[in-house]
Amino acid sequence: MRAQCLEMSIPNGSTYRIYLSRGLLDGVGEKTASLVAGRKALIVSDANVAPHYLERVCGSFARGGFEVAHEVVAAGEASKCLENASRLWDACARCGLGRDGVVVALGGGVVGDLAGFVAATWLRGVACVQVPTTLLAMVDSSIGGKTALDIDAGKNLVGAFAQPVLVACDFETLATLPEAEWANGFAEIAKSAVIEGGGFYEWLAAHAEGLRGRDYTVVQGAVARSLVFKGRVVAADEREGGVRECLNYGHTFAHALEAAAGLGTVSHGRAVAEGMRFAARLGTEAAGVTESFVAQQAALLDALGLRALDAAWPADELFARMAFDKKARGGMLRFVFATAPGIWQTMTVDADLVKIHLILWEQGVG
Amino acid sequence: MRAQCLEMSIPNGSTYRIYLSRGLLDGVGEKTASLVAGRKALIVSDANVAPHYLERVCGSFARGGFEVAHEVVAAGEASKCLENASRLWDACARCGLGRDGVVVALGGGVVGDLAGFVAATWLRGVACVQVPTTLLAMVDSSIGGKTALDIDAGKNLVGAFAQPVLVACDFETLATLPEAEWANGFAEIAKSAVIEGGGFYEWLAAHAEGLRGRDYTVVQGAVARSLVFKGRVVAADEREGGVRECLNYGHTFAHALEAAAGLGTVSHGRAVAEGMRFAARLGTEAAGVTESFVAQQAALLDALGLRALDAAWPADELFARMAFDKKARGGMLRFVFATAPGIWQTMTVDADLVKIHLILWEQGVG
Repeated sequence: MRAQCLEMSIPNGSTYRIYLSRGLLDGVGEKTASLVAGRKALIVSDANVAPHYLERVCGSFARGGFEVAHEVVAAGEASKCLENASRLWDACARCGLGRDGVVVALGGGVVGDLAGFVAATWLRGVACVQVPTTLLAMVDSSIGGKTALDIDAGKNLVGAFAQPVLVACDFETLATLPEAEWANGFAEIAKSAVIEGGGFYEWLAAHAEGLRGRDYTVVQGAVARSLVFKGRVVAADEREGGVRECLNYGHTFAHALEAAAGLGTVSHGRAVAEGMRFAARLGTEAAGVTESFVAQQAALLDALGLRALDAAWPADELFARMAFDKKARGGMLRFVFATAPGIWQTMTVDADLVKIHLILWEQGVG
Repeated sequence: MRAQCLEMSIPNGSTYRIYLSRGLLDGVGEKTASLVAGRKALIVSDANVAPHYLERVCGSFARGGFEVAHEVVAAGEASKCLENASRLWDACARCGLGRDGVVVALGGGVVGDLAGFVAATWLRGVACVQVPTTLLAMVDSSIGGKTALDIDAGKNLVGAFAQPVLVACDFETLATLPEAEWANGFAEIAKSAVIEGGGFYEWLAAHAEGLRGRDYTVVQGAVARSLVFKGRVVAADEREGGVRECLNYGHTFAHALEAAAGLGTVSHGRAVAEGMRFAARLGTEAAGVTESFVAQQAALLDALGLRALDAAWPADELFARMAFDKKARGGMLRFVFATAPGIWQTMTVDADLVKIHLILWEQGVG
């Protein structure tokens, strides 16, 4: 497995680099030193990740000439809150982090979103380096520039668009990754491959067993392909609304399921995989999806260990969650449908048809 | 006095309009209707402004087809806090304000900054309409795209850059403006004229008495000239760091004075005017400012009723505040100097020289 570096473009003309390799933690500070003028860094991590990797990252930034401060938040989605943002802003003030300073997110998606939002809003925006330590964060939240906090009314309702100056995916950090987190990453990779189609889909179908078996060469290949896909989508549409909508494939259902089941009961990855299955079946009536594609996608998800869920939740509750999400965001009840690998569309779907399919799903027949 | 409309450009290529007139409150909703796709509006105001104008603005948005919600915060700088931002985000959620919705800031700079930040971060950014009701907000905070909150560590430390979609300056709202607020606006206008120089400076020197006497034709002229000046600066440098630094003329001293005196003891306008006088005197040693310019600027400020302060605060305390500001922002002890109307530069100044001038100022001899 050799090191890779991907260059990501964003619509305003600037670019940033994503490094893919093992052992990057020990060099990320030096790499950052050439990108920012200041020499103050605040490193943000969580209680799961910090014991394993915080010291190495702090050491790397110190070697890069930085005066380093760090903050460790509790692990888990509940940390993506206003109270932690406030605490991190205070930490920025304490260490005198100026406009030329840098905030480093060392952790999964929660840390990435939280630290990314703090960087985007401290002094109206300072540099952010993302060091994702979960497979999902590597392929998803660490790029695209979406940062966010959760509030009582819902997840990700408060946030900012802000691109990182550098992303360092160190595959060594996956050694300590729990089982459910692997599934989260696999689902995101599967979603990307279905939307992208072509070579990526075929490659993943051929390498699903290797990925599931955590062959690191395959893992890196999957991450790189996912990033190239996502980078292209984001470059075309930095702010959501256009082609970027494709990234929500499986998510209308997944968000409702996660909310109905209670946060943490069903992992995001399992929920997205289930949402992809649901969208495909709904699409057979709503968008001309073929039974053959439903089966093809199911086989890919199965091969990645993302089996269909055994338990179901009440259809009316899921529908109410979808309707709430729709209201909270002022949008329509929209779904992304893939009709074949690489061919997708978004459609507003009749509420009654969605209800029927939720009932079929609850009964285990749809 | 006839209505005016200024078109402001921002670096990303988009533009927005600033309307200057009397009676705009009754039409701002209809004007907004053509700019945003959604029909939900959250109108934010404060307890001083709301009793006078909130109903008219709500009515205008209702006539524009909007479903209108409103929130009223306490008047004063203390309202620019995280707690109020949180309350407003909750209000956005309650009224189902989607990506196509709009947040309206009806009030002075505090409401503009607070509501502007909430708009910039709700769903990662929704449209914001600024309806400034103070002279200072009209010429300053309502344009430029700087939004912010205060935290314990300092003012404006948390924020975002986000341009409004529309600014409506209704001069009728100035009828209820307190004396100190007029001074705030005059100081900002004087600062702009000194930095811009040329026609603006000469016009203001000739019309200072009319402005001080609140001749509305002169007020509109001063606002329009200030906006054209500021719009050009912002267009050249949306994010602070380059030419936009000129807008900080008088502010290094003013921030320290306001902090040392205790918020609200010396108005921002008086502090900025005093800061311009201080910068000019410091500049005679640091930047080649002539005694003739010191006197010329003093005469302009006097004509606007912005007399030199009678009371002084301890030099060492002011210096400590400047040093703290420097530390919190990670920058240098920098001053903007004007050597003549229209000619300015920023310079890093030797700390001892600043101290000496603060002592002279404290003793009333410098």
